[in-house]
Amino acid sequence: MTTAADRLARLRGELAAHGLDGFLVPLTDEHSSEYVGDYARRLHWLTGFAGSAGTAVVLAGTAALFVDGRYTLQVRQQVPEGLYEFRQVPAEPPEAWLAERAPAGARIGYDPWLHTRPGLHRIEAALARAGRGAALVAVDQNPVDSIWADRPAPSTAPAEVLDEALAGRSSADKRRAIGQAIAAAGADAAVIAALDSVAWLFNIRGADVPRTPVVRAFALLWADGRATLFTDPAKIPPEVGAHLGGEVAVEPYAAILPAIERFGGRLMMDPAWCVAALFDAAARRGGVTVVEGRDPCILPKAAKNAVELAGMRAAHVRDGLAVTRFLHSLEADPPADELAAESRLAALRRESNLLKDLSFDPISGFGPNGAIVHYRASPETNRRFEGDSLYLIDSGGQYPDGTTDITRTIAIGTPTAEMRACYTRVLKGHVALATARFPKGTRGGQLDVLARQYLWAAGLDYAHGTGHGVGHYLGVHEGPQRIAAAVGAPGVEEPLLPGMVLSNEPGFYKEGAWGIRIENLVIVVEDPKPGDAQPMLAFETITLAPLDRRLIEVSLLSAAEIEWVDAYHARVRAAHAAHLSGAALDWLEAATAPLVPAARQAA
Amino acid sequence: MTTAADRLARLRGELAAHGLDGFLVPLTDEHSSEYVGDYARRLHWLTGFAGSAGTAVVLAGTAALFVDGRYTLQVRQQVPEGLYEFRQVPAEPPEAWLAERAPAGARIGYDPWLHTRPGLHRIEAALARAGRGAALVAVDQNPVDSIWADRPAPSTAPAEVLDEALAGRSSADKRRAIGQAIAAAGADAAVIAALDSVAWLFNIRGADVPRTPVVRAFALLWADGRATLFTDPAKIPPEVGAHLGGEVAVEPYAAILPAIERFGGRLMMDPAWCVAALFDAAARRGGVTVVEGRDPCILPKAAKNAVELAGMRAAHVRDGLAVTRFLHSLEADPPADELAAESRLAALRRESNLLKDLSFDPISGFGPNGAIVHYRASPETNRRFEGDSLYLIDSGGQYPDGTTDITRTIAIGTPTAEMRACYTRVLKGHVALATARFPKGTRGGQLDVLARQYLWAAGLDYAHGTGHGVGHYLGVHEGPQRIAAAVGAPGVEEPLLPGMVLSNEPGFYKEGAWGIRIENLVIVVEDPKPGDAQPMLAFETITLAPLDRRLIEVSLLSAAEIEWVDAYHARVRAAHAAHLSGAALDWLEAATAPLVPAARQAA
Repeated sequence: MTTAADRLARLRGELAAHGLDGFLVPLTDEHSSEYVGDYARRLHWLTGFAGSAGTAVVLAGTAALFVDGRYTLQVRQQVPEGLYEFRQVPAEPPEAWLAERAPAGARIGYDPWLHTRPGLHRIEAALARAGRGAALVAVDQNPVDSIWADRPAPSTAPAEVLDEALAGRSSADKRRAIGQAIAAAGADAAVIAALDSVAWLFNIRGADVPRTPVVRAFALLWADGRATLFTDPAKIPPEVGAHLGGEVAVEPYAAILPAIERFGGRLMMDPAWCVAALFDAAARRGGVTVVEGRDPCILPKAAKNAVELAGMRAAHVRDGLAVTRFLHSLEADPPADELAAESRLAALRRESNLLKDLSFDPISGFGPNGAIVHYRASPETNRRFEGDSLYLIDSGGQYPDGTTDITRTIAIGTPTAEMRACYTRVLKGHVALATARFPKGTRGGQLDVLARQYLWAAGLDYAHGTGHGVGHYLGVHEGPQRIAAAVGAPGVEEPLLPGMVLSNEPGFYKEGAWGIRIENLVIVVEDPKPGDAQPMLAFETITLAPLDRRLIEVSLLSAAEIEWVDAYHARVRAAHAAHLSGAALDWLEAATAPLVPAARQAA
Repeated sequence: MTTAADRLARLRGELAAHGLDGFLVPLTDEHSSEYVGDYARRLHWLTGFAGSAGTAVVLAGTAALFVDGRYTLQVRQQVPEGLYEFRQVPAEPPEAWLAERAPAGARIGYDPWLHTRPGLHRIEAALARAGRGAALVAVDQNPVDSIWADRPAPSTAPAEVLDEALAGRSSADKRRAIGQAIAAAGADAAVIAALDSVAWLFNIRGADVPRTPVVRAFALLWADGRATLFTDPAKIPPEVGAHLGGEVAVEPYAAILPAIERFGGRLMMDPAWCVAALFDAAARRGGVTVVEGRDPCILPKAAKNAVELAGMRAAHVRDGLAVTRFLHSLEADPPADELAAESRLAALRRESNLLKDLSFDPISGFGPNGAIVHYRASPETNRRFEGDSLYLIDSGGQYPDGTTDITRTIAIGTPTAEMRACYTRVLKGHVALATARFPKGTRGGQLDVLARQYLWAAGLDYAHGTGHGVGHYLGVHEGPQRIAAAVGAPGVEEPLLPGMVLSNEPGFYKEGAWGIRIENLVIVVEDPKPGDAQPMLAFETITLAPLDRRLIEVSLLSAAEIEWVDAYHARVRAAHAAHLSGAALDWLEAATAPLVPAARQAA
């Protein structure tokens, strides 16, 4: 077994042997993915850092590891001291560090399969500003791969057909419609690089990336709807081949490059998703005119059709029942610790027999661990459910008809007045967003404050976004839509379209003590009413599991907020009562009872 | 008297004589001003269009006039048919029209004193995309000026000293602090082009632009605090010269160009405010290294000091008394029409003997005219106060201690239930913004939805921003801060700083019927409270005049909103009661009485 120091030393040797003064090691794949297969976890292998996002920059005499605020603690635990400087993005971006440290005239290597051109331009601009003649150099062979002896091969999991009864639209129909969009953009064909776009376009799913049911593939889609799917042919069993049909050719994964090189005509490529290697191929022979444009699948995929939305709703009923059973069990049969709790919830989800995978690694945090926004329980951190505090569990499932993502915060023992006040302020913000009506054209960035206003009134806030997009049996993080405070951040300027699914997840975190988050998924729906002067939209909440009534300070709620909670709990009860009996049913009845007893209301 | 057709024909002759195929006629001045002196109203002279913003593009065979949504009606009334195509910005920008119409190889003239470089780059990029070789050409002499025989000379109004007792800080102190900021940006000196920045920096005011008390001048400020003021020396009477002191040289206005040309070193210039002629001068001899950076006066000017804020508050008490007297007179002695009403309010403002000018041309609209957001009453449009409807008056004053801007909407006769419901929804949004608390760092764009949410709930909205910055005895529109929906629009990404003054002015407009707007000015203030987890800000409302209680539907208000209105009215009463007597005092008492009578509250 090698050490991180050994691996870093060997990488430096490899760089020297190839005349390189440095190398960039991002955590992504050939498809600009956020989550990647094990074969692409070069950053983890090299440094020991196991987080889901980060970049290393290695120079001959120094190196640095760049992670975001979620991972500043974890990186120190997992990476031996002295090998890397630790830097926090976005405040301290890799390009600034590199521009400052790169020796005069340095040749800094990068793997063109792992970077987009806008990302490279940012680095090149920083090096140019530094004015010492350092430059980026594309490598043919990733030097990390050269020294990573036991690097896993990419997944060979077979692709599966997503039945049209679940997709709501045939692949042929999608390909024809997207083909028309390509023609309208003035192109003859488009390279589709984003893995979820490929899965959506062909109505296929796979198991090549943990927690995300995608197939590792590129696609070349022509304006007339014909296409080539570039993927390991072993991943296409006969039934998938039959499903793809005569209009879709299958070629090996690596054939995407020669296909682009020999392309003649106008080829649409999205600089945000197509990596530099693809753009380089387009530039190589001169026969390709690149039409830069957004991946034409992104909006049709995000704005889901009626069948996809029906599936999302059904998945949430099913998933909500598992969560409801879990919440009951927390009282009836308290788990020992965080890991036991998350295993129990996963087991309850599997009881549906329809769970394909979890949609992400659950965040199961008791007490102070609940205050770590992206906590991941491990044997080392696993906290026992001892003493009075809060338990936060953020989790979700992948079902053939939809993806779920839900957070509940539960009182363990007796909650304090502070916990109840903070929970109630988070709840008020959640309700304000859930009940918002807004004109067509409104962007997620405009709505964010609705979820924060009651925390702000108390001088509190949360340091994360309020809502991310969610896919249909695809990525639990799906763009482009987003509800967040950051003006100018990706997604916040994207108009919300009917059929988009987003999370509604305000929170509050008392560092070292406990965390609160309330997360339901919502669908953007048309909401016409008499008297409207313009087309209006609203949210439909689809997550169905009880909120902890013991944490709600009713005196802080308005009549309308109480009404919302009661109506929501009535929906939860109606959805799950028939599937429960005995003590579980009794618990559900109590957990979803009106906040103000009828007797008191009448008084 | 010439006609618009004559003037356009003569301009075309002038262009042909100088080998130009077209010319750009914006409405701005050498300082990128929004409001300009009469000498710079070339667009008005040429076309007859008297609005405050617009651009004409003249080609040999065709021409177009570009105005925003405020002016689409007005432009058709004022400009003879057939001379210009009318286009609405921002949907139809001049550069797109020009790029489409400019003949192959056309030379399109522009006056480099009237355009910023980013603006020119936008046009050049559009021409380049069109690919027919048309290009922009700077002219030495504006061809409009060549044919405008009776063009007024720039104002010769003398500058005045703004006493340090009103400015709160000496010019020497400001110059030294801004000088340090210039040094910190790596420059030796800065060109200050924005007229309000010059006025603020030197503690001077003037009368060169109607409604805006600025002096037409450039400044060159050195890192050590010394400066040169470039302005007509006749505008500097001895007392102003003495005030400027030995560290400030005065040179003629036109000397700014040679001063830049002969400058040796690093010169800071703001591309948003310094026109192309200034950048061209810096490039001419090679001795200047331009440091592009934001005008270093902008933020210190916007975030006002304690003395400036005290002046703003005092000006609002004084102005609010005039408005209160006016509101009483609307009932006691109804004016005949819109023009009579606005004259009466101006007269009441002048009674303070401190009014220097109005801060903008008032918007005085009865009935359907109130629905025109930037209405300006004229003898042709002047509407009589006949029948039941709403009257909207948006107006303000320039006082030596501050600038005011207030809108009130008043029921004339008996308001309908719809008017009351809409007014109350506008009021709820106004109160939500007025009472917002928010973390330091929050930007105006994040808060906008607070003012719109109750209108949205009813399917209604307003097509303008919610808040603009306001100067201290300077521009009634002052950047950079802004509260508006448009993500990415100027100002909405600017963090709100303590001391900034903004308007809070949601509205609702029923086209062809009536308009509602409620506008108070607010100061951004620090708002620390026990338990705050971070530094918090809030708004202090400084405008003091009654809201029309007859338009408030109390059943639509929350208890907190009723409390806000009552507390606000108590402040209005306390501010003005001592200055009123008899019927006016009785009226004030009634107009500011609690919304819910004490007897009913107790029930």
